[in-house]
Amino acid sequence: MKTVLIKEDIVSRNNERAKDVRALTRKKNVYYVNVMSSPGAGKTTLLTKLIPLLRERYRIGVIEADIDSDKDALAVERATGVKTIQMHTGGACHITCQMSMEALEALGTDGLDLIFLENIGNLVCPAEFDTGSDLNLVLLSVPEGDDKPLKYPLMFEVASAVAVTKLDVAPIFDFDRTAAINNVRRRNPSAPVFFVCAKTDEGIAELADYLLERIEKKLRSM
Amino acid sequence: MKTVLIKEDIVSRNNERAKDVRALTRKKNVYYVNVMSSPGAGKTTLLTKLIPLLRERYRIGVIEADIDSDKDALAVERATGVKTIQMHTGGACHITCQMSMEALEALGTDGLDLIFLENIGNLVCPAEFDTGSDLNLVLLSVPEGDDKPLKYPLMFEVASAVAVTKLDVAPIFDFDRTAAINNVRRRNPSAPVFFVCAKTDEGIAELADYLLERIEKKLRSM
Repeated sequence: MKTVLIKEDIVSRNNERAKDVRALTRKKNVYYVNVMSSPGAGKTTLLTKLIPLLRERYRIGVIEADIDSDKDALAVERATGVKTIQMHTGGACHITCQMSMEALEALGTDGLDLIFLENIGNLVCPAEFDTGSDLNLVLLSVPEGDDKPLKYPLMFEVASAVAVTKLDVAPIFDFDRTAAINNVRRRNPSAPVFFVCAKTDEGIAELADYLLERIEKKLRSM
Repeated sequence: MKTVLIKEDIVSRNNERAKDVRALTRKKNVYYVNVMSSPGAGKTTLLTKLIPLLRERYRIGVIEADIDSDKDALAVERATGVKTIQMHTGGACHITCQMSMEALEALGTDGLDLIFLENIGNLVCPAEFDTGSDLNLVLLSVPEGDDKPLKYPLMFEVASAVAVTKLDVAPIFDFDRTAAINNVRRRNPSAPVFFVCAKTDEGIAELADYLLERIEKKLRSM
């Protein structure tokens, strides 16, 4: 299976480079969060809700990755005012370490404490490619269904934390919270699962507190 | 850019093999539909609604592709009673022509007129890999947002038809039908756009009629 071998080689070379990204963020005293999910699960909207809760404490930057369109970067910048850049992947379905490094350099790490990378909307490929982040925040939106961890195992295995989004429509979609937690647990024994709603602000403060604790832990250790 | 060249080579070799799949379905007098969308956009549910409208006329088979879990194949079989197989891709984010051919052989084309392939839930990679299908049906679910064709161009470029699903929640998600059509049009000048809802059956008959017309056109020409 030549194809598979080539792919494994690309993935392993990528993941080796993750240490360079981590060395950079460590040197620059920056906490780096990789946000991943299906298309339209609410990554951008969640960032516009989290950032106001974290910006008093940290100087924040955002990297928006998309195959095309500048919509998300404009939305984040307009809603939060933080430094934001749009990266286009030229068709690529995930962010490699090289893209991650180039984006950090383009954004500029000086004078920032916390950087969010919004990865390509894709529940498969981004999970394979370590971006060098300190934390993988994986979103599962209610309309997608509580069974997604069963079908997309790796994404939930690499998650540091899971945020179930669009919680307000849970009754309409017969979304079962307990099933969602159990399905995440089948892939990941320890990642905390947050239930959030950007419309009502439910759960956003708890998720921000969790991030704050993780950020402090890294920054205090440096 | 070695990585890109390797990938282009894999894609072009795959797409060359599509003619073998088309030769098989032509020889066997089968119409082959590739259903693609984001995770949780409603591919399985739509199939359980379309199949009852087509089964009186055609002998139908279904190939369910997933990275893991047999949930979808069981759901389709239970709801419709048609011959269904579950294919696991072993982590792969799309269906190649080789997988497509092997799945058709595993399902068996003899005695079937219409075969649906439910691709991996992914709005990026499956668009690059021609499965040898006669028609690409691309789903865009309302909760994902009407902007998705802007961000995931290739998927909407390769669509033969687009079905906007979960229409009942359009008011909750501020989904703009006209914007959705315009965004599809920026990527694809001709693919018809259907607005459907599996809960209320809205638009399902129109989509089934469209498929019927396409199927008849191929089968009549053989």
